Amino acid sequence: MERVRWQVVAVAAVGLALALEALPAALRWLRVGRRRRPRHEVLFFPSQVTCTEALLQAAGPGPSAPPAGCQCSLPHGESSLSRLLRALLAARASLELCLFAFSSPQLGRAVQLLHQRGVRVRVITDCDYMALKGSQIGLLRKAGIQVRHDQDLGYMHHKFAIVDKKVLITGSLNWTTQAIQNNRENVLIMEDEDYVQLFLEEFEHIWEEFNPAKYTFFPQKRRSH
Amino acid sequence: MERVRWQVVAVAAVGLALALEALPAALRWLRVGRRRRPRHEVLFFPSQVTCTEALLQAAGPGPSAPPAGCQCSLPHGESSLSRLLRALLAARASLELCLFAFSSPQLGRAVQLLHQRGVRVRVITDCDYMALKGSQIGLLRKAGIQVRHDQDLGYMHHKFAIVDKKVLITGSLNWTTQAIQNNRENVLIMEDEDYVQLFLEEFEHIWEEFNPAKYTFFPQKRRSH
Repeated sequence: MERVRWQVVAVAAVGLALALEALPAALRWLRVGRRRRPRHEVLFFPSQVTCTEALLQAAGPGPSAPPAGCQCSLPHGESSLSRLLRALLAARASLELCLFAFSSPQLGRAVQLLHQRGVRVRVITDCDYMALKGSQIGLLRKAGIQVRHDQDLGYMHHKFAIVDKKVLITGSLNWTTQAIQNNRENVLIMEDEDYVQLFLEEFEHIWEEFNPAKYTFFPQKRRSH
Repeated sequence: MERVRWQVVAVAAVGLALALEALPAALRWLRVGRRRRPRHEVLFFPSQVTCTEALLQAAGPGPSAPPAGCQCSLPHGESSLSRLLRALLAARASLELCLFAFSSPQLGRAVQLLHQRGVRVRVITDCDYMALKGSQIGLLRKAGIQVRHDQDLGYMHHKFAIVDKKVLITGSLNWTTQAIQNNRENVLIMEDEDYVQLFLEEFEHIWEEFNPAKYTFFPQKRRSH
């Protein structure tokens, strides 16, 4: 009996030791296997027209108490536009925008709020569309936000944003009220390192290429060599 | 000594048993942890202009021997356009296209080849752009491919394709030569169940909504009730 009891203790000890040995590896697998699936969301448009006032006011630089309930007649629930606004307003450090057409007042206000909050905002856009009536580009420039544009015959036709160098927002949607409210459109919101990296490289590449030092709108400034 | 040797054997046996016990779990973790990362590729445009003749001829329904080297003066390497063509030509069973503007002759030829090979092709497009000069839509219809279109004031502005219900191709690119060769554009190629499912639902939803039975182009056909 004495010998059997000793053996039981030995077996238990060995079992425990092996289990402890295997624990770190098991935890590693656990981490890899359950690695959080990156955020991926798709917004489809046309978006229901909803009131985005509370969302924008809460994101403002003033006291952060939510405003008294908005009294307008629009519905106050979530919509594709409110989700897009939320994804943008999450920015804390940087926002890169690369947009063919930008005239939505709500999206323009969100970008200005981020700039006021100290987020570094940079905008690339298309020269043919930036001066159209209703464009937000002039207002963003007036607010002190850096904007660069093409001067090609081809269009700068991207429609993407990068939030805090972590989340890519891209799709078919131009940031216009017409598109938001009337068109069939899609926007992907992706927290994905690889995609963010590729689009960030594209942004930096275009940003350098559209350096204002290279603008040749004024023929007399064109270099002769 | 006899007793010590017996204990060594016992410990080894227990160790082996525990290891075997843990093996299936370890293999499970291994499978989860190393699950193949779905294909995700980004194409940026403008695309270098390259010859896509060999690619299209090899995909044709005829004898599959590659054609004699094309003698044209274009470069014959890979480009964003050739990669997009390759992703489409991989279709074996089905291709859903949801495109605002479609006039690229190469992409039109690829879609016709797939139809000839027996791939089930369905196209949704925008009524304002389908009748423009150079549009491929008329040619696709003539070839027997099903096409449906909106009749709204808003645009059907999506630019996506779904290959074999497995790969989503989406981005800012309209399928026009102007966009391919001159514009800054992006196209994502994603093998991702969740995205494919969401875009497929959007496709089927629009496909039903644009059912020709509901077309009201001919006022006399409008129902009076």
